[in-house]
Parts: sequence; structure tokens; C-alpha cells
Amino acid sequence: MRYLAIGAHPDDLELRCFGTLAKLKAQGHAIGVCNIANGSLGHVTIPPEKLKVIRHAEAAAAAALIGAEHFAADVDDMTLDRHNQAVIQRVAEIIRRFRPDVIFTNDPNDYHPDHIEASWLVFHASFSSSLPNYQTDSANHPLVPLIYYFDTAKGLHFEPTEFVDITDYMDLRLQAFLCHQSQLEWLQSHTHANAAEKTKIHAAFRGYQCGVEYAEAFRLCPAAHRVPAYRILP
Amino acid sequence: MRYLAIGAHPDDLELRCFGTLAKLKAQGHAIGVCNIANGSLGHVTIPPEKLKVIRHAEAAAAAALIGAEHFAADVDDMTLDRHNQAVIQRVAEIIRRFRPDVIFTNDPNDYHPDHIEASWLVFHASFSSSLPNYQTDSANHPLVPLIYYFDTAKGLHFEPTEFVDITDYMDLRLQAFLCHQSQLEWLQSHTHANAAEKTKIHAAFRGYQCGVEYAEAFRLCPAAHRVPAYRILP
Amino acid sequence: MRYLAIGAHPDDLELRCFGTLAKLKAQGHAIGVCNIANGSLGHVTIPPEKLKVIRHAEAAAAAALIGAEHFAADVDDMTLDRHNQAVIQRVAEIIRRFRPDVIFTNDPNDYHPDHIEASWLVFHASFSSSLPNYQTDSANHPLVPLIYYFDTAKGLHFEPTEFVDITDYMDLRLQAFLCHQSQLEWLQSHTHANAAEKTKIHAAFRGYQCGVEYAEAFRLCPAAHRVPAYRILP
Amino acid sequence: MRYLAIGAHPDDLELRCFGTLAKLKAQGHAIGVCNIANGSLGHVTIPPEKLKVIRHAEAAAAAALIGAEHFAADVDDMTLDRHNQAVIQRVAEIIRRFRPDVIFTNDPNDYHPDHIEASWLVFHASFSSSLPNYQTDSANHPLVPLIYYFDTAKGLHFEPTEFVDITDYMDLRLQAFLCHQSQLEWLQSHTHANAAEKTKIHAAFRGYQCGVEYAEAFRLCPAAHRVPAYRILP
Amino acid sequence: MRYLAIGAHPDDLELRCFGTLAKLKAQGHAIGVCNIANGSLGHVTIPPEKLKVIRHAEAAAAAALIGAEHFAADVDDMTLDRHNQAVIQRVAEIIRRFRPDVIFTNDPNDYHPDHIEASWLVFHASFSSSLPNYQTDSANHPLVPLIYYFDTAKGLHFEPTEFVDITDYMDLRLQAFLCHQSQLEWLQSHTHANAAEKTKIHAAFRGYQCGVEYAEAFRLCPAAHRVPAYRILP
Amino acid sequence: MRYLAIGAHPDDLELRCFGTLAKLKAQGHAIGVCNIANGSLGHVTIPPEKLKVIRHAEAAAAAALIGAEHFAADVDDMTLDRHNQAVIQRVAEIIRRFRPDVIFTNDPNDYHPDHIEASWLVFHASFSSSLPNYQTDSANHPLVPLIYYFDTAKGLHFEPTEFVDITDYMDLRLQAFLCHQSQLEWLQSHTHANAAEKTKIHAAFRGYQCGVEYAEAFRLCPAAHRVPAYRILP
Repeated sequence: MRYLAIGAHPDDLELRCFGTLAKLKAQGHAIGVCNIANGSLGHVTIPPEKLKVIRHAEAAAAAALIGAEHFAADVDDMTLDRHNQAVIQRVAEIIRRFRPDVIFTNDPNDYHPDHIEASWLVFHASFSSSLPNYQTDSANHPLVPLIYYFDTAKGLHFEPTEFVDITDYMDLRLQAFLCHQSQLEWLQSHTHANAAEKTKIHAAFRGYQCGVEYAEAFRLCPAAHRVPAYRILP
Repeated sequence: MRYLAIGAHPDDLELRCFGTLAKLKAQGHAIGVCNIANGSLGHVTIPPEKLKVIRHAEAAAAAALIGAEHFAADVDDMTLDRHNQAVIQRVAEIIRRFRPDVIFTNDPNDYHPDHIEASWLVFHASFSSSLPNYQTDSANHPLVPLIYYFDTAKGLHFEPTEFVDITDYMDLRLQAFLCHQSQLEWLQSHTHANAAEKTKIHAAFRGYQCGVEYAEAFRLCPAAHRVPAYRILP
Repeated sequence: MRYLAIGAHPDDLELRCFGTLAKLKAQGHAIGVCNIANGSLGHVTIPPEKLKVIRHAEAAAAAALIGAEHFAADVDDMTLDRHNQAVIQRVAEIIRRFRPDVIFTNDPNDYHPDHIEASWLVFHASFSSSLPNYQTDSANHPLVPLIYYFDTAKGLHFEPTEFVDITDYMDLRLQAFLCHQSQLEWLQSHTHANAAEKTKIHAAFRGYQCGVEYAEAFRLCPAAHRVPAYRILP
Repeated sequence: MRYLAIGAHPDDLELRCFGTLAKLKAQGHAIGVCNIANGSLGHVTIPPEKLKVIRHAEAAAAAALIGAEHFAADVDDMTLDRHNQAVIQRVAEIIRRFRPDVIFTNDPNDYHPDHIEASWLVFHASFSSSLPNYQTDSANHPLVPLIYYFDTAKGLHFEPTEFVDITDYMDLRLQAFLCHQSQLEWLQSHTHANAAEKTKIHAAFRGYQCGVEYAEAFRLCPAAHRVPAYRILP
Repeated sequence: MRYLAIGAHPDDLELRCFGTLAKLKAQGHAIGVCNIANGSLGHVTIPPEKLKVIRHAEAAAAAALIGAEHFAADVDDMTLDRHNQAVIQRVAEIIRRFRPDVIFTNDPNDYHPDHIEASWLVFHASFSSSLPNYQTDSANHPLVPLIYYFDTAKGLHFEPTEFVDITDYMDLRLQAFLCHQSQLEWLQSHTHANAAEKTKIHAAFRGYQCGVEYAEAFRLCPAAHRVPAYRILP
Repeated sequence: MRYLAIGAHPDDLELRCFGTLAKLKAQGHAIGVCNIANGSLGHVTIPPEKLKVIRHAEAAAAAALIGAEHFAADVDDMTLDRHNQAVIQRVAEIIRRFRPDVIFTNDPNDYHPDHIEASWLVFHASFSSSLPNYQTDSANHPLVPLIYYFDTAKGLHFEPTEFVDITDYMDLRLQAFLCHQSQLEWLQSHTHANAAEKTKIHAAFRGYQCGVEYAEAFRLCPAAHRVPAYRILP
């Protein structure tokens, strides 16, 4: 199977579904990761143009750690818009190139405007990508991929329908997160919290809920043509 | 009373509320139908420009079958956008010309991006149409019409609040759906299912839920000025 | 049609659905009212045995005002229990004698333990009453009646699905409520509020929501065999 | 793995989860089925004492068809009560004897009072069965089994979280249902519907929702110690 | 503390949270109010250009009554769009200038398209305003403010999580509302109701729910970084 | 103010609200704690009669640690029943003796049958306790206390409406939990987890959600006469 995770910002996936991705990779599946926004506003002192380059490299390094193919849609932070036709096309083209069976993306009820828009962009683009007469560089993807929404920031407003045991991949996930050095500085200054420690608490709590040490939580997007009769997650 | 059904694509109404419309017509009410999108991407081999013409004719034929006035907003598939002022105006103008007491439209939780946007376009435009100083060709509609959301694709994520017995109109509804010959080819190729047979299962299930042979399911839009003290449906 | 309203205490119906009952009566329907509890604890100084007699007479007087047949199941306050077989039988027998098409009762999410239990007692008994081999004095009721839950105390935790315009019956409803003289004294002492004034605010608010002066709000019990394809309420 | 399905009445399982049970059996799992009520009131003319014997035989025959071990708790219809300690003990003892990893049971929001109580009896008894000092004939079950609620009557008020493809087992399921000859007469008289035809519509609709021909729908009981990190269903 | 209320139209705040604002002001807090739309379409006979000026003055007068600083984003009615970057910037700049700890705004489930968009504009802009590299005239706001959604029109589709007793400020709130003379004429013609009387019923009902004479109802926006461990409301 | 926490088993309160109780105590409020069940089945080897005595002493020791008055209703494990009149009276009498303004209790959606029943017993008994003619040894409590439901086991199925920062009381809470030595042995054997460590993860996660180090989460019981216009929690 082919799994593509598409998050808003360069570090969203590392904090929410990288354990599952690493596990799927270890099971022999093909993994792609994509950040729609370029992370341009995620720092106090580094200006956007310079930051975009740094964050792209950080995301690529994290992807490499788990053996995932890395894509980026290069949209400036805080400008994501579910109705932007050019961005929908860009995301649809990435989907067509990777040809996923399953997509992971942000939950539409998350706290960050970009997360919400990213979620809808993926919803739109993954449908468009299946239409033969919808024009991008590549030919249409032959199916409408399933969508799993990953956990929200701090798990607020999120009722999981499925859990994945990531105990064996927790260290790797943290290592991947630590590739985002510029972001760590930012999170420290913006939220006054140790992000690496907090993400461990989050994963430990999700693990506690389903009876393992560390887990990631997901919610299936319950839309027609995207509801399977079988479990897809590992 | 005057009932206007506004769906995203040329065949949405036939699959979700044409039984109710036919019943209302038989009871002497005035019926209008409108598709916002022109169906341009709904085929594998027929190119958009040619398909639009075909699908308009198909929709008009289906409308004629139940004696409904046919409108179309002629927006390309996968470009519907609830914030597009020009499209809102176009839909508002159609509402002003038909002057409905009640509108049927797609549910905002449906599976297709165009369905979601169509639902919100109708929500916006039906409010705008009532404002004297909102400019379109026609004068303002003197009331804010009620909105009923019709069933979603496959009935997923939809809790009906009202049912309509369409047993006597099921054949006519199927006949109307079969007017969409180009779409039938498309659905067969895109979803690998016999759409005519599936829509019978759907209506039989809704009928089963409310104790009749075939039924359509609706949900009232619970917004201020749109909540009546009386049942509107037949 | 035949409508039977079954509330927990002698004054519950007067505060929640008497406007609708009076309207249905005026339209020619047969109306029954029943209180399951006898109101034994609803006073500061009048002891239970004496109070039960007073409250029964008050309820009967209120019923007479709207031309309703009056029933009572005579269970002591704060002892209602959905699993009490004797009480279920008593309520089933009342249902069999009145033979309602529709039942109104308390919402199972209401604030008072007796209201919650009354709601479930009605749910159980109305099903039992339809079974030929379930034994009470009368033969089985030939159908499983629909159930409408009426509004909760203060409208908390209650999302109405239907409203009834009771503007023309508001005065009569208040008059019926004022038959409960002993209860008025109690409510004043227990809740420190003018119940008659508060019930007007409640009905005015429900009217405001659906665009009339005074209204009552209901929620259909969405259980199999109890979901109609037609509106039942006036 | 060991799967135990516990329904209220002798035919509940056949209509809701027998396809899944047959599939699990074919995959080599151990299957048990149990009806808590004896079906004593499920007929118009056959009196309770005689009917109980008939229905027990019918349930045993249906169980035999799919190779399931058959249990019964022999409680009279319409007397199920989640707080009845003797019945909880009887159900706990059945659980201890079968030692299931997973239990299927009625949804607590279903339409029939006995279904609701059966659901809670299973919830209580499956917890009790794991406690060493809780006394029944057998020693404690070493785990708290997972619970899946199967679909409600007519699918009302039920949002599935998982689907099982039962296409290959639909005929067998119908055959099992037809073992309940006395019940078929009853359903025909009580609901005026052809139950065998309706259950096909129900399964076809659930199949339609998840993209297969026939399916059964389930909802995991989201209680602590009962939430797995893996899919359990076939 | 600093509280900024941002509503869609010039009179929204007066109808939903002015009692709370007046109370906070009396307790010594700093209060700002802002209308995003200019109210251009809110009249039958006064044309937009003229009306905008009138309504701005009316809003300023109402703000003065409770000692609040008045802001306006001057967007035309029915054109609010959560994705309009220029408007987001304008609102972010107002937030940066006022530096609120807490924001009150419309609920995203309200009935009016502009209310829905205003709610999301505030959600976006209040996040943007905290980012150092997001460009507007002023420097970034050092925190992400909490958001309270105030009650919807007619209280439909709104489950309050907190109430504020405004009994002592009800007269002042009504006085502030009456500053909107042009709007009163409009509401009378568009909704055929006495708005001043209806808003009293609404506040009396919310007061009834929480045991005071008049109250306003709120719902905390449950997004990460916006959930406090302490109550913020007076 | 007077706060009474009533949990099902001897250690429920220590795991869910002891931080808040300790904080309230430190602020000068009067605190009572009560366990309804006696914990008779909570061990593998210690038999019920002996265990009850041990657990009572453990609960009393924990209460003493935070300076709370200790009550117990002494009902055997797995026999709690919301309709048991004798137990309701016993709990009502405890409420009348302590005279609380606010009660904390288990959530009715929790995982343990006894937790669910305890929640409803408190709901019933706290209402009964306010009725002058409801007979127990003490005179009636002059008010219907507010109810806060504390967090569920593992936080499943629980959407908090309020959080309390317990960072300064986390050590004391753990110390109180460790008083339950017999229960620690049981939890280790029954759930194969280190309960003390898991409860820290739980509190750290709730703290993470609301921006403090450790927190407890609550949900107000939204029933009439129990909804305040002010925050009650510290």
C-alpha cells in the first residue's frame, strides 16, 4: 500500500503521525510526506525568505530519517485557503505523482487556521486528483484515497476512532521532530513550553487510553467513497 | 407554495429529492430546480466544453418530466466557492426570479467539495436575496426562505429530522435520473457501481426507517428566521 | 387521532405541553392526560398522604379545563423506577384503555430523577402495551404509539426538532397551571421564583425561536417503529 | 480468538451480526451465541410457556448452522433489568464459561426496552466476570472483553465506526434467520412488514455505505480497558 | 484585563454581550468594541453609502455609553470572507492596537453568513496578530487571546458553557441597542418583530436557565492555546 | 463554601479530584469525601469481608491527608443500583449532614458499572435531600447542590468544560493515592499497569491541554437548578 501524509507546516506530521508512518515503512509500505505551508512565519528573528529554506531542509531531513519521499507545496504561512485553485492543483499534482491509497492530514477542527485550511485543501485536492478531465501535469489518480485525520494540537476537540501502537517508533519520531531545530526555538518562545516533552506526554496519554505505552490517535473521514469495510491502519 | 431545489451538479437533485418534488408538484405547488455546477468534469472521455452542453440538456429533460422550471448557474465543476461574489449574485438572482418559500439543497457535511460549497452558496445567496439594497437584476425576495438539506451520498453522516413518503413517485424519480445518460456512464466508471440500483437501495432503506416503501430524508437548517412552527414537507 | 400526555408529576404537563393539547382538542382530537407520580413530596408543610389527595384534585381540575380525560398511576414521589414491573403494568393498562396514536412525555435528559424515570417508564410501557401476551386487565393496544418528548425544565440540554404555535392557547395553559395551587406554594419556596411568570418567558422564548408569540418545543423519540413519514403535531 | 455474541431475544443476533460471526467461524475462530430473554412474548397466539420452548429450539438451530455454541439466560420478555443481580450473575457465568476476547451485543440506544437492558446487562456482567472475588460457579475470566455494539433496528440513531463485509455470508445469515419460524409470524403481524426482505435492504444499505454488496455495521464501546490499538473485526 | 468584542455588524454586540462588557467595565477592565462590516445593506430605503456613515455613528454612540473604545474594519455587508487577506490584516491590526487578553465574537454556527465569516476572521486574525513576522502597522501582540463565542440569534443551535449575570446592566444594554435607530427600522421591516422586546425575552430566558433575572450566554472556543484553567468571565 | 466529593470506590476521588479538593481546602473551604461502595471486590486474594475494613481505613487515611471529613455508604462492590431506595436514603442523609454547596462525582459515561450507578445515585439523592418531606434522620438540605462530574478513567468519552490547576497539589494527591495500598496491588494485577505513573500522565495531559503542569478536568452537570452564572471551581 501507499500512504501519503500531508500536513500544514513542516513539523505537523512529526508531532502527530510519524510513529505510524515509520511503522508502515517498516512493514514494507511506501511512504510520502508533504507540507503545504513553507513555515515562513515560524520564527521570531529569522525572516520569512531565509526561514523557508531552512525549514524545507529540516523537513527533508526528517523525512529521510523514516525513509519517506518528501514533497512540499510551498505556500506562505497564514495564507492557506481551501478555495485557492492554484494550490488545490499543486496538491492534486503531488497526490497524482505519489498515487496514495490512504492520506493522513490535519483535522478540520484543529486550532490553527492553516491546519483547518490544509485539511480542506487535501479533501478537495484528493477528490480532484481522481477526475480524468481535471488538468494538472500528471494523469488522474485512479481512485479517491481514504483520509485519516490525525490528532489535534493538545488532543482538544478530538474523539479518536482508531489508535496505532507506536511504542517501538517513539524514539525515531522524537528524533525526526528534533530535525526541526528552528521550529523548536519558535515553539519555546511562542508557547513557553518544552515541545519535545509535551509530545511525549501526548503520545503516552493516547497509549494509556488504548493500553500500550505510546500511541497515535486517528479519526476516519466519514465521507462517501472513503469508508472501507476493513481496517487500514497498522 | 413555491419550492426551489438547488443542487451542486446536474443529477444531484434526481438522486436525493426528486420524489418529494414530484409529489409537491402533484399537490399543486410550483417547483423549480437549479444546478449550480455545469457538470463539466463528469466524464472520462467527453471534454468539458462539450459535456456542459449535454448535461444541461439532460437536466432540462429531467426537470420537464416532473413539470419543474429549470435554472442553471453554469459554474465549472470543482471551482464552486462559497465566497465567490459573482456566483452568489447569480444564485441570488435565480432565487429572486423564482421567489421560493422553501429551498432544498445539499447538506454541508456531504462528501463532494462542490456539494459542500453549493450548500453554503445557497445559504449565503438566499439571505442576500432578501435584502433590498443587495444588487442583482431583480428586486429583493420578500422573505428568507426555509432550507431543507437533503440526504448525503450513501446517507453517511446524516441524521434525518423528517421523512417524505415517495413510494408513488419512485418510478418517476428513476426515470428522471435516467435522463442523465452521460452521468450514468461516468458513475459506472468512477465508482464501479450501478447507480440506479444503489439509489433504489438508498430510498428503500429510508422508507424502511419510517415505515413506508420508499422515502427521502431531510434535515431542517436550524438557523434563525428559518425555523417554522409547522411542517412544510408533504 | 388520540393523544395521551403522560408526565411525572401533576403539573409537568401544564408547564410543557398543555398548549398543544388544548389546540389538538380544539381541532377535534381526543386528549388524555396522566401523572405517574402522585406529587406526595411537593410541599413544605402539607404531609404526603394529605397532599396526594389535593394534587389529584388539582390535576383533574386542570384536565377538565381543556376537556381531557384524566388518569393517574399513583406512585409516590422520588420512587419512580423504570424497572418496576408493577408500575410498568399500571401505565401499560392506562395506555391500553386510552389507545393513543401519540404519546407526549418527559425528556430522558431532564433534571428531575422522577422525570427521567417517567420518560423510561412510558418508553417501556408503551411497547409492552402492544404485545398480545403481555398481561394487564385490558387487551393489547394494536400499535406502538409515537412518542414526543416535551421540553426540559428551563429548556436546558434540549434541542427541539418541532415547534407548535400555542399563542391562542397560552391563557388557557396558564389557567390550567394555576389549578395547581399547592404546587405554586412549593415552587415559590423551593426555587425562589415566580413559576407562572417563568413559564411565560419559556414559552415566549420558544415562540421567538420559531417566529410566533408563544410556542411549545418537542423532540421526536427516534426509535424504530416510532418514526413517521408525516408530521403529527398541529 | 473467541467471540461471544449476546443479544436480547432469540433472533436479534441473526438480524445484526450473524454474517460477521459466520465469517469469523470460517476464519477459524471460536464462536458463541447467547440470548438473554427467552422470547416468551413474541407471538400473538402461542402462549409464553409453549413459545419459550419453541424459540429456544429455533435459536439452537440457527447457532448450529454457523457452528456456534449456543447459550441462553432464560429471562422472560419485557422483564430484563440491568440491576437484576441474579441475571447479571447468570450472564457473567456464561461469559466465564465461554471466555470471550470480544463480545457483540445490542446498542444501548436501540428501540426495544429489552435491547437496552440487555446491552447494560452485558456491560455489567462482562466486568463482573473478570473479578476473582465475584461469585458464580466458574472462576473469573482473566480479562475484560472488548464490546462491539451491533446495528440498531432500522439503523436509526446509530453512527457505525466499523463495517464488516458479509457478502459471502449473506445467504447463510438469511437461512439462520429463517430458523426463527415463530418469530417470522410475529414480526409479520406486529410490524406488518416482510422481515426477511427488510433485513436484506438493511445489509445492502450498510454494504453500499462501505463499498461492498452486503455489510454489517458496528460501534466500539469506548470504555476504559475496552479500547484496542488494533482492529478486531474481520 | 483587556476585553475586545468583535462582531459582524454594528448592532451584534449590543444584542449579545454588551451587558457583560458593561459589567467588566464597571469592574475596572479595559473594553474595546469593533464591528467588521459597516452595515451597508441594513436598511430598506437608505442607500449603502449614506447608511455606512449613520451606522458608524450609531455604533460609536453605543460604545461611548459603556465607556468602550470603538473600532471598525469597514467591510461592506455580505462580502465578509474568512480568506480575505486584506481584511484579516485589518482585523489583526485592530487586535494588535488593543492588545486584548480575551476576545468575544460571533458563533461560527450562527444564522447570518456575515456572522459566520466574522467568527472565522477573528479566529484567523487573532492568531496572526501574535506572529512577529506577520506584517501589519503595529508589532505583534504577545499572546494568542482566548475567544468566547456569544449567543446565536434566537439562541438556536447554541449550547452555552458559561453564563454571566447582567441584571444590573440590562437597562444600559437596551439603551445601547436603541442607539442603533436605523437598524431598528430595518429589523422591524425585515423580521416583522419588535427587536427590543425580543432581546429582553432572550436575556430573561438565559437568566432563567442560570437562576438570575437577566443573563448572557457564552461558549469558550475550545482550541489549543485558548483553554484556560481559570474562569475569565465576570 | 462546602464541597462534598462522592465517588463509587475508595480510591476514585484520589485519582480524579483530590488535587482540586486539596486546593479548595487550602483556600479555606470545608471539604467532605464519601465512597459509596466499600471496595469489597477489589483484590485477588483478600476476601470481601476483610477487604472492606482495610479499604475503609485506607480511604480515611487519604481523607485525613487533605483535611477532609470522611463518609462512607458501605455498599458492596458491583451491587450499586440507582433505584435502590435504601442506598439513596443513605447518600441523602450524608448530604444532609455535610450540607454541600457543590458535589463532585463520577461521570455517568464512565467505564465501570459502579461508577455509572454512583453518578446517578448522587443525582437522585442530592435532589431528594432538598425535599422537606423526604424522610431521613436529618432535616432537609436547604438547596439543590451543583454537581461537577470529574474525569473518566483514561479520559475516554469525556469533553471537559472546566480545568483546575493542581500543580501545587500533585504530590499531595499522589501521597493520598498511595494510602490505598491494597488497591495498588489489585490495579497492578487487574490492569497490568503502574497506576501511580499512569495517573501522573493523565494529570500532565490535562495540564497540557489548559497550559499548566498538572490539571484536573471537570464537566458541569447541565441540569435545571444546577447551572450557576458564576464559576465555582478554584
